[in-house]
Amino acid sequence: MTISTPLTEMFGIDHPIVLAPMGGVSGGALAAAVSAAGGLGLIGGGYGDQDWVAEQFDLAGNQRTGVGFITWSLAEQPELLDEALAKEPAAVMLSFGDITPFAGKIKAAGATLICQEQTLEGARRAVAEGADIIVAQGTEAGGHGSSGRTTLSLVPAVVDAVGNTPVLAAGAISDGRGLAAALMLGAAGVLVGTRFFASQEALGMDAAKKRLTEAAGDETLRTRIFDIVHDLPWPEHFTGRAIANQFTEVWHGREAGLEAALDIERRHYQMAVADMNTDAAVVFAGEGLDLVETVLPASVIVESMAREAEKLLDKGARRN
Amino acid sequence: MTISTPLTEMFGIDHPIVLAPMGGVSGGALAAAVSAAGGLGLIGGGYGDQDWVAEQFDLAGNQRTGVGFITWSLAEQPELLDEALAKEPAAVMLSFGDITPFAGKIKAAGATLICQEQTLEGARRAVAEGADIIVAQGTEAGGHGSSGRTTLSLVPAVVDAVGNTPVLAAGAISDGRGLAAALMLGAAGVLVGTRFFASQEALGMDAAKKRLTEAAGDETLRTRIFDIVHDLPWPEHFTGRAIANQFTEVWHGREAGLEAALDIERRHYQMAVADMNTDAAVVFAGEGLDLVETVLPASVIVESMAREAEKLLDKGARRN
Repeated sequence: MTISTPLTEMFGIDHPIVLAPMGGVSGGALAAAVSAAGGLGLIGGGYGDQDWVAEQFDLAGNQRTGVGFITWSLAEQPELLDEALAKEPAAVMLSFGDITPFAGKIKAAGATLICQEQTLEGARRAVAEGADIIVAQGTEAGGHGSSGRTTLSLVPAVVDAVGNTPVLAAGAISDGRGLAAALMLGAAGVLVGTRFFASQEALGMDAAKKRLTEAAGDETLRTRIFDIVHDLPWPEHFTGRAIANQFTEVWHGREAGLEAALDIERRHYQMAVADMNTDAAVVFAGEGLDLVETVLPASVIVESMAREAEKLLDKGARRN
Repeated sequence: MTISTPLTEMFGIDHPIVLAPMGGVSGGALAAAVSAAGGLGLIGGGYGDQDWVAEQFDLAGNQRTGVGFITWSLAEQPELLDEALAKEPAAVMLSFGDITPFAGKIKAAGATLICQEQTLEGARRAVAEGADIIVAQGTEAGGHGSSGRTTLSLVPAVVDAVGNTPVLAAGAISDGRGLAAALMLGAAGVLVGTRFFASQEALGMDAAKKRLTEAAGDETLRTRIFDIVHDLPWPEHFTGRAIANQFTEVWHGREAGLEAALDIERRHYQMAVADMNTDAAVVFAGEGLDLVETVLPASVIVESMAREAEKLLDKGARRN
């Protein structure tokens, strides 16, 4: 039986699967592919290139998609939100920062406000400020997040804390087992990043996608060093989960040394990026990597995740 | 419908719920209560007081229970295993160390060998050495464990890695939602610690149980300082998750300072323990704490966890 949840009802979608708005990865083509397959695609607004975001909405064509922003970065160029709202997105997702300046405008424009949080306190505050959906993000999630709570412990606690507001689980959900588990925890759906990074429609280097299919979940770590070398002023309590490589081996735990050597190290790093050399260039990824073995079309990812979860749910209590 | 899994079949038990063999907490009375309620109780062998372990088996009476050991500690007094096997335990669980010296003897005695692991590599090795059941322990678990993988990401990966060997999920499972989620991830059951610590039959200070019902999941951390002050030579990659208190505020991250001041600090600490003062004395607990609100009889914990999971599983794909 097709899975129905408050999320599928809210958006009139077939499957409770939302594409994480990964900066530099979740472009219009990927977002559209996820929506076309019955999920909900969110374009990754990243650090806010206005022309780029507009272009991605155009690439998404007639598919109903949304967009996600890094909240502290959006605060530096709030006009980006107006441009995005002009595209009539189905949803706007805000992560990592104070939503107060933006919540009212997003809701007034008729978009659903999705807020990603890492603590119970953050989830409660976001709901009080008008969040329509909370994403409870565990530390195992790829890319930016916190080193605090894990998905399995955070989701049911957030569900209990926010009452009727639908909660999406984020962090290490890469297949139908993870989707079914999230629903059992009380989530209305899942936000999926890493699994969609390893999709044909994802932006980003082929070398990065190849690395995703080869690396194991034990090989990731949370670190600030890529933000340092990228010169991104992330608040210190947010780190990025990435696949360990030569750059993390040298610099993780030696952040002050990296800052001191930044001029030369940044040049080396940029050369590695230009060479598509993932021994140095960052590949953000979550702990769900063990379940990511091939680069697939996004539609196959959505459909196989939904089918596997449906099968598990239909099986009921007899698990042997 | 009652849940059936390879675990319930293997032991002929009603519910796929196993009591974690918590040292100083999981005595014979608690283990017996969990088994009597349809789960499987494991006595916590801890750091190995032979008379104490024998006494706990006697307290468990006619209930079929097992026992768990800290493997590196058992290696220091291997005769403890012989004493335990003489009690004909249903299962022996080994955690934290090399199982090679013990696996053959446990299986030859007819006990089921349960091995707790924190990585895929560890799980594969344990199966190769004869483990009948693998516990996949996420970092959110209370007490000793590792700072690596989380339950949600580790369980399905271990299930894929170990073939037909049943896998139990451990870490932040405190209610029927967690049990149902674990089953969806492919686990055959769950190993539950913190939730049973807050039971009437658990050993340990009432003040500690009270703290468990009051503290939130965001208040725990992994630390070595309690092992330092307890003079326990844990391998460095194993830390203990405990509720943050004044002692962690002062010493966590200042381990060398604690070592230097150990004579006096240990005396202060021991006085706090004698005073049952949880501002200093350790209260080990996992991130599932948000779901622990009252001290309950163990039978109520087992039954409500099973009933809630059955209800969730019976509901199938319609989640709204």
